[in-house]
Amino acid sequence: MKVKPETYQQLIQTICRKAGLDEEDARATAGILVRNDMLGVQTHGTYQLLTYIHKIKAGGIDPHAKPEVTAEGPAYARIDAKHAIGPVGGMAGIRKAIEIARKCGVSYVGVYNGSHYGTNTAYALEAVKENMGVLVMSNTIKLMAAPGSKGPVIGNSPFCFAFPAGKHRAAFFDIATSTAAYTRILRARDDGEKLPDGWIVDGNGRPTNDPHAEAFSLVPFGGHKGYGIAFLIEAMTGILSGGAILGEVEQDGNRNLPNPYCVSHAFVVFDVSSILGRERFGERMDQAIDEIHDSPKASGSSRIMVPGEIEMDKYKEAEKNGLVLADDIVERVGKLCAEYELDIQSAAYVP
Amino acid sequence: MKVKPETYQQLIQTICRKAGLDEEDARATAGILVRNDMLGVQTHGTYQLLTYIHKIKAGGIDPHAKPEVTAEGPAYARIDAKHAIGPVGGMAGIRKAIEIARKCGVSYVGVYNGSHYGTNTAYALEAVKENMGVLVMSNTIKLMAAPGSKGPVIGNSPFCFAFPAGKHRAAFFDIATSTAAYTRILRARDDGEKLPDGWIVDGNGRPTNDPHAEAFSLVPFGGHKGYGIAFLIEAMTGILSGGAILGEVEQDGNRNLPNPYCVSHAFVVFDVSSILGRERFGERMDQAIDEIHDSPKASGSSRIMVPGEIEMDKYKEAEKNGLVLADDIVERVGKLCAEYELDIQSAAYVP
Repeated sequence: MKVKPETYQQLIQTICRKAGLDEEDARATAGILVRNDMLGVQTHGTYQLLTYIHKIKAGGIDPHAKPEVTAEGPAYARIDAKHAIGPVGGMAGIRKAIEIARKCGVSYVGVYNGSHYGTNTAYALEAVKENMGVLVMSNTIKLMAAPGSKGPVIGNSPFCFAFPAGKHRAAFFDIATSTAAYTRILRARDDGEKLPDGWIVDGNGRPTNDPHAEAFSLVPFGGHKGYGIAFLIEAMTGILSGGAILGEVEQDGNRNLPNPYCVSHAFVVFDVSSILGRERFGERMDQAIDEIHDSPKASGSSRIMVPGEIEMDKYKEAEKNGLVLADDIVERVGKLCAEYELDIQSAAYVP
Repeated sequence: MKVKPETYQQLIQTICRKAGLDEEDARATAGILVRNDMLGVQTHGTYQLLTYIHKIKAGGIDPHAKPEVTAEGPAYARIDAKHAIGPVGGMAGIRKAIEIARKCGVSYVGVYNGSHYGTNTAYALEAVKENMGVLVMSNTIKLMAAPGSKGPVIGNSPFCFAFPAGKHRAAFFDIATSTAAYTRILRARDDGEKLPDGWIVDGNGRPTNDPHAEAFSLVPFGGHKGYGIAFLIEAMTGILSGGAILGEVEQDGNRNLPNPYCVSHAFVVFDVSSILGRERFGERMDQAIDEIHDSPKASGSSRIMVPGEIEMDKYKEAEKNGLVLADDIVERVGKLCAEYELDIQSAAYVP
C-alpha cells in the first residue's frame, strides 16, 4: 500500500492520541516513526506502534509520563524518561542536547528509563535540522557474544552519527554492533537458508551457519572491534546516564509487555556554527563529499556513496511519490485503525 | 633488549632535547612514546623517534612550535599545532579538553596542523588519570577503499575511547577502521604469505589475497560500517577542527620529510565526576566489568576480557619486570644515541 506521508503521519498521531498520549507526545511519536518508514528502516517505524500500544495497555509504557531533567551542568544533563513511550524520551534527550549545545558549543545528554524508540537516526536528524553534528547511541538487551564467551554478554547496541553539509545533504549512518541484525537470523530461518560465516555462535559459543541453532548469540562486527564499540556504548548510555546496564535491561525487551524496557540513550551534540562557522563547515563537508564522489570507480560500480545517501534517496522518493508500506505494517496499523474506528485507506496516496 | 622504563624514558627525553625540543616538549614526547611501547604498541612508540627527528632536520616538523588556541567557546576549542612534533600537539589538545571538561562537564577540542603522534590511547589515558572518559580520533592519509571505489578514498583513521572504572582498571580501546593495518600487509609480503580474505583490494578495486598487488587499498572493517566510522572521524577531526582533509593531508606521510604531515585530532572529554559522580560511575563500571568477566566461557576459553586488558597487562608487566624492546627499536634508537653520544645500554634493566 502506498500512503501520503503527511496524511499517514496524521493518522498515526490520531492513533497515538486514542492510545492515551497527549497532543505533543502523539505528534513526536508519529513524526519519529513515519520518519523511519520514509528512510527505509521500516522494521523500526510504524511497524512498532502496535507493540508500543500493547505495552501501554499492559503497563510497560506509561503514556502520560513526562521526562524530567534530574541532573544538569553547563554542558550536560541527565534525563529520567520515566518509561514514557520511546520517542517521547528520545525527543526530550535530543532537544535538551541541542539547547545546551547552542549555549556551550558541545553537549552530552544521557536519557535513562527509556523505552524502544525506533532508530537513533530519527533523533540525529533533529540536530541536523538545527545545523548541528551529533553522535547518538542506545544500549539494548544482551544478544551478542564477546570473544571467548559461551553466550550473549552485551547488547548489539546501535551507534549513529550525523553531520550537516552545505549544498549536499547531511551525512549520517546508524549501525548495530553485530555483523547482522537479529531479524536477519529469523528471516533466514523462515526462508530455509544457511547463514553466512561470522553471523552467530551456537549455545556453546561455537561458530555455526545454522539459523535454527539453539540459544544462539550474535557475533560482533569486526570481532573485537564491534565488541569494543558495544562496550563504549554501554559506558556512554547505561552507565554515564545513571540507567540500567547489561542484564538490568529487561531481557525480554518488548515481548515482556507489563515490564518497562529500561534502555538508555546518549546524545553528544556539536554546534558546528560555534566551533567552526556554519558556512565554512558546510563548504568543507561538501569538499570531502565531492572528493569521494569523484574518486575513480571499481569496474561494475557507477557510484561511491557517502553514508546516508541510500536512506536519503528513499526519504526523498517517499516525499515525492508516496511512501510504500510493507504488508505487515499495513496489517498491524490496520488492526489499530479497526480498534479505534479509523480507516487506513484515508491515508492512501493519490497521484 | 630489556630496559628500565623510567631510565629509558629519561634517555628518550635527552635525545629529544638534543634534537631541539625544549624541556617540557621533550618530556611530553618521551612520555607518550614510551607509554606506547609499554602498552605493547611498539610500532607507534620510540620506534617512530628516528623518523620524527629526520623530519625535524628536513623541516617537516618544527621542534620549537608552540600550539596555539585559535578559537574557544564555553565547551570547545580549536588548536593550531603549527607542525610541532606530534606528541606536543596531542598533549596540547588533551590538556585543553580536560581543562574545559572540568568546568563544563563535557568538551570538544580539535587540533589541526598536527604531526604523526603515536596512538590515540596514549592521550586518552591522560583523561583517565583525571577521572574522565574520552573519545579520541585522528585522520590520516588515504589508504582505504570505500564500497565501489577503485582506489583509496579515505584514511583508515583510528578511533579510541577510554573510561575509568572503580576497583578495576580503566577500559579502553583503539582501532584502525581498516580490517588490517598497513604494516601487516608489508609483513605478509616479507613472510611470503597470502593475505586472508577481506584485507585489501587491488589497483582495480578487486578483492585479492596477494600482498604484492600493485596500488592496493586497505578494506574497511565490517564493510560499509568501517567506512562510515572513517567518514565520521574525517568530520570530527579535519573538518570540524578547521584542518586538512582527505587528499590535503600529506599523502606520503612521514616518508616526505620536508613537508608537514597536516593531520588533525579530535578529543571529546566527559567528566564523569560532574555528570554522575566519580564513585557511582566507578561502581557501575565495575559492575559491568564483573558481569562480563563472570559470564560463561566458550569451551577452550578461560577468560572474557573487557577492552584494554591485554594492553594493561603488558603495561603492568613492563612496569614490574622491565620493558622488552623489539630489535628494530633498539637499532633505531641506538642510531640516535650514537649521533648524540649517548649509550642505550645505560637504560638496560637490572633485576
